Amino acid sequence: MKKALLATTALVLSAGVAAADVTISGYGRTGIIYYEDPIADKETQVVSRLRMNIDASTETDAGVEFGARFRLQWDQGEEDTHANPGKLWISAQGLTVEIGNVDTAMDSSSLIYATELGAFDRSVGFSAMVGDYYAYAAKSYGGEPDRVGVAVAYSFGDLNLRASVVNYDQTIDGTDKEIGLLAEYTWEDRLELSAAYTKNAEGYDGEDLFFVGARYAVMDNARVGLNYVDADDQSYGKTVALYGDYTLADGLTNIEAYVANNDPSTGVTNVTDTAFGIGVNYDLGGARLGASVQRDYDKLVTADMGVRFNF
Amino acid sequence: MKKALLATTALVLSAGVAAADVTISGYGRTGIIYYEDPIADKETQVVSRLRMNIDASTETDAGVEFGARFRLQWDQGEEDTHANPGKLWISAQGLTVEIGNVDTAMDSSSLIYATELGAFDRSVGFSAMVGDYYAYAAKSYGGEPDRVGVAVAYSFGDLNLRASVVNYDQTIDGTDKEIGLLAEYTWEDRLELSAAYTKNAEGYDGEDLFFVGARYAVMDNARVGLNYVDADDQSYGKTVALYGDYTLADGLTNIEAYVANNDPSTGVTNVTDTAFGIGVNYDLGGARLGASVQRDYDKLVTADMGVRFNF
Amino acid sequence: MKKALLATTALVLSAGVAAADVTISGYGRTGIIYYEDPIADKETQVVSRLRMNIDASTETDAGVEFGARFRLQWDQGEEDTHANPGKLWISAQGLTVEIGNVDTAMDSSSLIYATELGAFDRSVGFSAMVGDYYAYAAKSYGGEPDRVGVAVAYSFGDLNLRASVVNYDQTIDGTDKEIGLLAEYTWEDRLELSAAYTKNAEGYDGEDLFFVGARYAVMDNARVGLNYVDADDQSYGKTVALYGDYTLADGLTNIEAYVANNDPSTGVTNVTDTAFGIGVNYDLGGARLGASVQRDYDKLVTADMGVRFNF
Repeated sequence: MKKALLATTALVLSAGVAAADVTISGYGRTGIIYYEDPIADKETQVVSRLRMNIDASTETDAGVEFGARFRLQWDQGEEDTHANPGKLWISAQGLTVEIGNVDTAMDSSSLIYATELGAFDRSVGFSAMVGDYYAYAAKSYGGEPDRVGVAVAYSFGDLNLRASVVNYDQTIDGTDKEIGLLAEYTWEDRLELSAAYTKNAEGYDGEDLFFVGARYAVMDNARVGLNYVDADDQSYGKTVALYGDYTLADGLTNIEAYVANNDPSTGVTNVTDTAFGIGVNYDLGGARLGASVQRDYDKLVTADMGVRFNF
Repeated sequence: MKKALLATTALVLSAGVAAADVTISGYGRTGIIYYEDPIADKETQVVSRLRMNIDASTETDAGVEFGARFRLQWDQGEEDTHANPGKLWISAQGLTVEIGNVDTAMDSSSLIYATELGAFDRSVGFSAMVGDYYAYAAKSYGGEPDRVGVAVAYSFGDLNLRASVVNYDQTIDGTDKEIGLLAEYTWEDRLELSAAYTKNAEGYDGEDLFFVGARYAVMDNARVGLNYVDADDQSYGKTVALYGDYTLADGLTNIEAYVANNDPSTGVTNVTDTAFGIGVNYDLGGARLGASVQRDYDKLVTADMGVRFNF
Repeated sequence: MKKALLATTALVLSAGVAAADVTISGYGRTGIIYYEDPIADKETQVVSRLRMNIDASTETDAGVEFGARFRLQWDQGEEDTHANPGKLWISAQGLTVEIGNVDTAMDSSSLIYATELGAFDRSVGFSAMVGDYYAYAAKSYGGEPDRVGVAVAYSFGDLNLRASVVNYDQTIDGTDKEIGLLAEYTWEDRLELSAAYTKNAEGYDGEDLFFVGARYAVMDNARVGLNYVDADDQSYGKTVALYGDYTLADGLTNIEAYVANNDPSTGVTNVTDTAFGIGVNYDLGGARLGASVQRDYDKLVTADMGVRFNF
């Protein structure tokens, strides 16, 4: 029942405060994905995504920054576009506090998705095995309206730290909150280290996840990395991946590949312990063409080809 | 589970790429519409629409343009505003490829809606008889989440061509895809020609539509057109319309009218074969006042009066 | 079935008309609220809101302004963000006409919410007793898709007038429309007067509401006000509140307080006739920190502490 003033003076994308700022950014992505699947009707489909982040922020006289984000996103297979729950944040002196639909520690690792290939950023060998944990909800809280998250991030030179807590229902007592921790370190833009730990993943007591990764630039145009994740509590077992990427002399074509080994959880049997993939991206300047071929732990092949552009 | 970076630098309405661009445009429309209807409780109602298109695009170094569109739209009679499925497109050298929620060939004709009158752009004599085909979904895919469209458009001087294919469910094999073709030609801004053909309209095998239209500027301030549509496969019969518009010496007032004749499909009986209407629009500069009176094939009268503004 | 042109020229946040304008503004708010509640599982919860208004407007050559507003809003406790029904408006020479999701007279009073405290703008002693009436729907028409509102506002110097009519279903005849009237007067920025009357509140025949308020700046940094509301038709009784606020010498800290007395409706019993509260806000420049403690008519205490920033 709060009133909304009609006569708001129409300043372009800001209101009332000089330093206020609203931006829309995101990306579009489209192409085809093939899944080898003996029983599927169609193995190849057109897959598209359109994502727009609406970011608002304002800076106080003392240099404290306040901000918020909504996201509008549509994925092929959905009837319409979704608007997700909001994230609010406060930032000062390298310290950022987020409330609401926060970025969790595990999901914020700069290396956990580093094995992903092509325009669709897929990795059936590693990203598919990192377990289930809360992340920034891209569309909806999915049956958990009373979910609330708090995250704290701190940057100090080459060191980045993040802690997150997500409660799936703050209206009841004694819930098992998901707690996440992330520590990252970079050295002269050559070495990247990332370690993350999640306790009570998605609010399930005793389901803990652990990730550690390292990547090193062996040449100016070549990087090699090693990732390890323990998602044994969720029956994904333990997975290690060796990966790397190499930029050709044209400076536009990037070749990337990974090979991953899964040590399955008790009672789980893999057709093979090894998954691998190779991809390529070609930089168009503001957009990229990408393709990949991968084989998963069931020896099934998946491939994709597409384009992605940022705005 | 993809991470969303918190610390996106806040550039006004663009991110990362210099040539990227996000715009919001659309229109508002409001007024009253009267339908003669012996059994209706209320024959006159307030009718409003608010439409906002959110367009994002970016241009690569080589001049290839990538873009995407969402739409937010509210119409009187709805509880809230809808966000439709996304359209992605790539354009270069006059050739445009669209994927997702595409503009179909029939719906993109520059003349098929040319008989429409007033601020609400209604034509009960012709537009109501053009049949049912896929168009850019303004709100939702309505029960067809796995619908996917692809369209190709090509402009060469005064010639415009468009082909579209819409599959109502790409996850199953052997669907009857809607295929559309459009060819348009303009000559010295005086003559406009448009022809469109749709096969398997809305995915129904054997339901084909055909449209042809022509309009000629007989004077600098007067145009006359002739439209023909065959929607006999969908029991709309065949309809021909003669229409025109005339701008008064003030350069602001535009009078428009049409008379249409319907040759009904087998088994369908019209009260009359002739429908007609007259309308007027007054240009306010950025907005227009409009009104129309029309009589349909049941000899029922409808009228409207309203205002529309663009932004 | 109207076509959407692909090749809209991408002007930043405007399209086609030079004077057109689209803006995004709003606020974010987060903090904790405590409710004394002997039977509740959790008395303290994190409460957040993110509100974005998307305003579009255009001005004709003759100086008539046309505009529209959508709102995107997320509140803690909701799975996703909502987009509300649209409001359209036309304004010229101090006269504004709104159609659709309009601002009603009662809800537009500049004093009816003046007792509210802290960053969350809550007042359990007065705002909670003002009755139920139509307001600008922040999220959805909630089961009333055919609701339609019309409002007229007029400003003349220090005088502001507003009349509103809301019909909860325009498709049926003989509905009891909510009619609202508002008159406001300010004198030399020192004295504010506001009176509002609502007939058939929310469309219920015979449920009338009456409000009158006055506030006077006794010093440059101190104001005292008196509000009275009669919501007896809706069993809220009659409530009078004395309130004021005082800005400390730093010019940033504002202390605010109210004491309210409720004369209950027949059959309603209060634990106490008196409710009161005290709050404080600290201006950060673009954002504010706020806190309040209040006691309601059941002698239950509620308190909040939070931050709010505008953009």
